[in-house]
Amino acid sequence: MKIVVIGGGAAGLGAAGAAKGQDPSAQVVVYTEYEDVAYSPCGIPFVHGREIESFEKLFLATKEQYVAQGIDVHYETTVESIDTRSKTIKVRGEGEVGYDKLVLATGWNYDTPDIPGAELGGIYHVKNIRAAMEWDRRLDDVRSAVVVESGPIAMEMVSALRHRDIEVTLVDPGPWPMADVIDPDIVEPVRKDWEEAGVSLKFGEHVTAFNGTDTLTHVSTSFGDLPAEIAVIGSHKVPNSALAQSAGIKLGSTGGVVVGPELRTSDPDVYAAGDCAEIPHGVSNVPLQGLSGSHAYAQGKTAGINAAGGTRTHNPVYVPWGMLAGSWMIGGVSFGETLATALGLPFVTGVANGITRARYYPGVKPITVKLLADPSTRRLIGAQMVGGEGIKERADFLGIVARTGITVDTLATMENVYSPAIGALNEPIAMAAQALVAKL
Amino acid sequence: MKIVVIGGGAAGLGAAGAAKGQDPSAQVVVYTEYEDVAYSPCGIPFVHGREIESFEKLFLATKEQYVAQGIDVHYETTVESIDTRSKTIKVRGEGEVGYDKLVLATGWNYDTPDIPGAELGGIYHVKNIRAAMEWDRRLDDVRSAVVVESGPIAMEMVSALRHRDIEVTLVDPGPWPMADVIDPDIVEPVRKDWEEAGVSLKFGEHVTAFNGTDTLTHVSTSFGDLPAEIAVIGSHKVPNSALAQSAGIKLGSTGGVVVGPELRTSDPDVYAAGDCAEIPHGVSNVPLQGLSGSHAYAQGKTAGINAAGGTRTHNPVYVPWGMLAGSWMIGGVSFGETLATALGLPFVTGVANGITRARYYPGVKPITVKLLADPSTRRLIGAQMVGGEGIKERADFLGIVARTGITVDTLATMENVYSPAIGALNEPIAMAAQALVAKL
Repeated sequence: MKIVVIGGGAAGLGAAGAAKGQDPSAQVVVYTEYEDVAYSPCGIPFVHGREIESFEKLFLATKEQYVAQGIDVHYETTVESIDTRSKTIKVRGEGEVGYDKLVLATGWNYDTPDIPGAELGGIYHVKNIRAAMEWDRRLDDVRSAVVVESGPIAMEMVSALRHRDIEVTLVDPGPWPMADVIDPDIVEPVRKDWEEAGVSLKFGEHVTAFNGTDTLTHVSTSFGDLPAEIAVIGSHKVPNSALAQSAGIKLGSTGGVVVGPELRTSDPDVYAAGDCAEIPHGVSNVPLQGLSGSHAYAQGKTAGINAAGGTRTHNPVYVPWGMLAGSWMIGGVSFGETLATALGLPFVTGVANGITRARYYPGVKPITVKLLADPSTRRLIGAQMVGGEGIKERADFLGIVARTGITVDTLATMENVYSPAIGALNEPIAMAAQALVAKL
Repeated sequence: MKIVVIGGGAAGLGAAGAAKGQDPSAQVVVYTEYEDVAYSPCGIPFVHGREIESFEKLFLATKEQYVAQGIDVHYETTVESIDTRSKTIKVRGEGEVGYDKLVLATGWNYDTPDIPGAELGGIYHVKNIRAAMEWDRRLDDVRSAVVVESGPIAMEMVSALRHRDIEVTLVDPGPWPMADVIDPDIVEPVRKDWEEAGVSLKFGEHVTAFNGTDTLTHVSTSFGDLPAEIAVIGSHKVPNSALAQSAGIKLGSTGGVVVGPELRTSDPDVYAAGDCAEIPHGVSNVPLQGLSGSHAYAQGKTAGINAAGGTRTHNPVYVPWGMLAGSWMIGGVSFGETLATALGLPFVTGVANGITRARYYPGVKPITVKLLADPSTRRLIGAQMVGGEGIKERADFLGIVARTGITVDTLATMENVYSPAIGALNEPIAMAAQALVAKL
């Protein structure tokens, strides 16, 4: 049994490790175009921002560890094509390579805005760690930067650049940061925080050209020209599915590879996992792509197990999410009001402004929880939160609440830990649910 | 409609406020034996430990606020008896007072160990804030203390006394701290922490006498005499239900007042809430007493609403709990291995040692999660945790999991937030559930 994995990110390595775990006798080969595998790209903005001291910290495992596990990683190799009839892939410099089962974990690219001058130096797509190391040295001499659109990585990069004392202008066509994901009331503290940190915020605006000779010197925008030595691209992720498409593997409405619950593609010997694939949303059944590293890793494991002869299914997703944004944590599950309205989903909201510890205990932080429920089923269809701590854990919790169909009535009567140093008398999730129930 | 509440703690004030909210025309009268209401007794150990700067910080509301709410609080009054036939109570100094509905919120007492010398000065029952203010001044001159048994308040007092540079000996008949609640593997980091902080730990031992003239000078124990200027009583809470019992109201196996789902006692016009009552446990149906302040407050609200003519029911409890212990947070839900074994409940465990943020992110803390599931239903029957952050939120989550019957299979495939600053790639709850499923 030979299992070939294309891609060395969380999905690819998750698949390789799980395949080897499922069938230790399987030959598992991973192809990656990069020099490294098994590092955390999500940490890059925090090294730029100096919260993390070095890029070396981001590596999770050494190349030797993969050798020891019996996983054969081919670095800096390009897979040029897949032939599903002969069950071979064509690798540049290696020729044709056969497989019994193939796992596509080709990841994502930035949705490149169609802006003239995009080929100039000084335009930074935060993704690869080697490139990030070079960019990091360069940041010492940069005085002005523009961040183009406010995707999640861009949100982190705004803070990172300010930590490096770089003047930052955020230009985003949306009406507020991450407008496709978060509601304006929830992100307002972040906007204010950035404003206080001296970030120039331009919402409802867009970059029209990158200008300079060889390297960027200024950008043209809908509100005029501004100087910028670098531009950080903060646009959405799009699935890197060109290889699959060329091989005749079915893509879906998002451009991601279509997979069933076993993460099998339209070809029975080919699986796909992570950002190159699309996964149905549990509430709306709409396919989604561009989820988190933990989704990619979990999907990779499922694909690897199945490729190696096991049986595991992947559930529809409810997408608990969270991140640091300025001095706040933001997060949620599934839909906010903006997205639910756009999708035409009926909903009622309940909002609570709570605290994370006893009011008098050092380190107590504010936390706002907004819950959305379907008025007929009274089930949770989404949540949005901003606060100083405890956002990730609550998002995980509410992800399970949405998935299992727990009603807001149940949440309204939840028990909660009260101990001054770690939790307040009233849990904001329960308070928000009580407010919601009162409206229903 | 006249509603009388006996007790000015979380249950009593919760009942008074909720009754007034339910029926603004109701006359609501609260009797308390103390000088104050509406402060947080749970904060007292942290003022002693200097984490919180003053006792004034612990007050939640002023006396004027209750007046403004139309709640008539009688301070420093003793209720001597209840006559359920004439629907009156006898108040010392006020005589007979009638009621339409009565709410018992008489709270708890320490289970006083039957030790000679218990009447000496220097023996501290942490409970009332005025007493705590006096004790706090005295602590400046104390050099040695003994803590008798390791109940939750005692756990916090051990740390508080060490923070004040007082030599501490903890004498507990159990085999490890809080042995009736927590498993030895989970509490081990706390034990080690205390050991490193110079606390003398004497498990499997007991105090046999308090010695001194007028005030404590030394204690006799099963392992010999030791000097101690103060003794902090850390024994269990027992329900303060004597008044109810004298009135012929039914008590249960714990000594707490028996209540139905509406928190009505055996007398149809009398409700009980908080530590004086017992509530069935959701997994075992065994009645429990001595829960947390958030339980007392929630029960108080339910009793108050019902007393004022509303209808609300209180659910069986699954008891998410958590607290600071040494430099750790500990917590859980329902049963650990020790208690489940003692109760004869069949269970399988899954344990995971995880981290709270990305491994490389500043402030990352270890966290251990142990889950217990019923092997036939695969439902969660308990959890135990120790870690550096995120314990309270996970305990709340797992409380709902236990209550709603979510299986460990569902937890094993939970989605989780991954973002370096706030959450790790792998959620320890999911990892523990995966370990558990693998065993089943």
